[in-house]
Amino acid sequence: MKLATLRNGRPDGQLVVVSRDLRHFVSAGRIAPDLQTALDSWETLAPELHRLSEALDTGGIAAQPFEAHMAMAPLPRAYQWIDGAGYLGHLERVRSLQGSKDAELQSERPLLYQGGSDSLSGPTDPIIVPEEDLALDFEAEVAAILGPVPMRPGREQAAAAIRLVTICNDVSLRRLVVDDLQNGFGFFHAKPATAFAPVVATPDELGDLWDGQKLSARLQVYVNDVLFGQPNAGVDMHFDFVDLIVEAARTRTLGPGTIIGSGTVANRHEESLPIKRDGIGFACIAEARTVEKAKYGRARTPFLKSGDSVKMAALDRMDQPIFGAITQRVSILGK
Amino acid sequence: MKLATLRNGRPDGQLVVVSRDLRHFVSAGRIAPDLQTALDSWETLAPELHRLSEALDTGGIAAQPFEAHMAMAPLPRAYQWIDGAGYLGHLERVRSLQGSKDAELQSERPLLYQGGSDSLSGPTDPIIVPEEDLALDFEAEVAAILGPVPMRPGREQAAAAIRLVTICNDVSLRRLVVDDLQNGFGFFHAKPATAFAPVVATPDELGDLWDGQKLSARLQVYVNDVLFGQPNAGVDMHFDFVDLIVEAARTRTLGPGTIIGSGTVANRHEESLPIKRDGIGFACIAEARTVEKAKYGRARTPFLKSGDSVKMAALDRMDQPIFGAITQRVSILGK
Repeated sequence: MKLATLRNGRPDGQLVVVSRDLRHFVSAGRIAPDLQTALDSWETLAPELHRLSEALDTGGIAAQPFEAHMAMAPLPRAYQWIDGAGYLGHLERVRSLQGSKDAELQSERPLLYQGGSDSLSGPTDPIIVPEEDLALDFEAEVAAILGPVPMRPGREQAAAAIRLVTICNDVSLRRLVVDDLQNGFGFFHAKPATAFAPVVATPDELGDLWDGQKLSARLQVYVNDVLFGQPNAGVDMHFDFVDLIVEAARTRTLGPGTIIGSGTVANRHEESLPIKRDGIGFACIAEARTVEKAKYGRARTPFLKSGDSVKMAALDRMDQPIFGAITQRVSILGK
Repeated sequence: MKLATLRNGRPDGQLVVVSRDLRHFVSAGRIAPDLQTALDSWETLAPELHRLSEALDTGGIAAQPFEAHMAMAPLPRAYQWIDGAGYLGHLERVRSLQGSKDAELQSERPLLYQGGSDSLSGPTDPIIVPEEDLALDFEAEVAAILGPVPMRPGREQAAAAIRLVTICNDVSLRRLVVDDLQNGFGFFHAKPATAFAPVVATPDELGDLWDGQKLSARLQVYVNDVLFGQPNAGVDMHFDFVDLIVEAARTRTLGPGTIIGSGTVANRHEESLPIKRDGIGFACIAEARTVEKAKYGRARTPFLKSGDSVKMAALDRMDQPIFGAITQRVSILGK
């Protein structure tokens, strides 16, 4: 089934069930007021939500038209947002750009960082930055929303905790990354609100695009309506979601509603921008710039500036968006 | 007024008003089921809670006996836990111990890290660690719980957002700190669940112990019932809570219910352990060990091990605990 959280003036929004084709929705308010409530009692409530979803998809229920701009983030505020680094290709490219760390890349255990989760952006919310000059970048990622995970889980426990899958835009202020990392306390100012697709799907809904550990779908990204990248999230994912969850729970439990990100999706290739229709490209600007620096001696692709737009969607085999699209425009605080 | 969250079998617990002397409580359930709900509508609900508090303290209402073990963390799961580094003395001591960073200490802007907030421990919850050998430490801190803060707030806006004050134990696995920091993504595995005192107080309740920016109270810490430290949180706080909030909101808003920590309270002195009754000592083990290394060539004070206990409380001028005590015992996962 597919779920979404619609704006209703409340901080946690209104839980709805969305049709498989993303065209219609029906309120799930009689089952759970919001998604966190559903996740808190998933064993009891998920079967009821599934029944509602079936009724919706078979046309057996009155539904209303669904549009992305009605949606907030699935969890507009979450108790935890952990971002992993599943795709080593991203790390390799970005770290050489930033010169931030020359430590050997860890290929045995994934890197994770604790992200801010108190206000997550909806799919059409603007990206609001305090200044123009912060080297604003996007990062297209796959994200999983979890049930409870015990400390030191086995792989099966970790896999069984994956309740919902979607995509997100981990907005990054590259100019502040170096400062954050040099401070030694990790990302903070460089990672403002992450944005999420309008719809989340249960793993069973994804069919063979989901193998229990990763999503095999192209993540298509446009910047100002020009194709920027379309790496496949199922390719070159060195650490899959089960790896990421096991690592995240090494010294602690994870509460229900924890969101964990795949890291920027990155496929290995030698292309630079612009790419053709059959190219792969990049799911963030920093990677494109690294490749340009190596190839041309300087970066050509600019970071995002006020008024720019970024659009991203995960596509199924019919090139239809699975979770709807994230479409954000950049604006400067107070302007 | 003083508030607490009692266990009721639900993840967010039950909001209660606690008497000034911490002896009695009355349910606040008719006003708000839990503390986050109260924080979401603070302007409306705080006056009602204050009236209930006055009725309780004047004996005008039937009350029940309050004990620390009934309490969960004030927000058993929070949307945000940010820990600052307000006391440079702590940073100076700990960083020389860990050899983690030789970057110049920032004395112009406070360091902050994003902590996990999905499961915060109550005052008598055990500290559960997955292994004995992780160099388990405590950190006694003051914490503020906030209302909404806009991006780039002025100092007055930041100060006005402080809703509640309490203390916490920022549990740290020192053996993992170096790894976390060398990874370059910041604290993650080294910072399992933070524990909180049983009671939170509004700033007005603190009288002249609270100057709008910091708490002037001794933070008394015992390890296995031996006095370990009693630094005054009002002394040597280089960055006060207003500084920390302004810094935290540099590139983002802070949602209501954000908890921000002072960092380990540390007063400058030349003592080593054991301290006398009039000594100052330390609010974490790592600092004591650094001083010992400098003085004796090696650290003498061990980190916490299974079965050890740590107790901490902030004391008023009559040496009474303001927020009750955090009393935790260490246990190993599955034992």
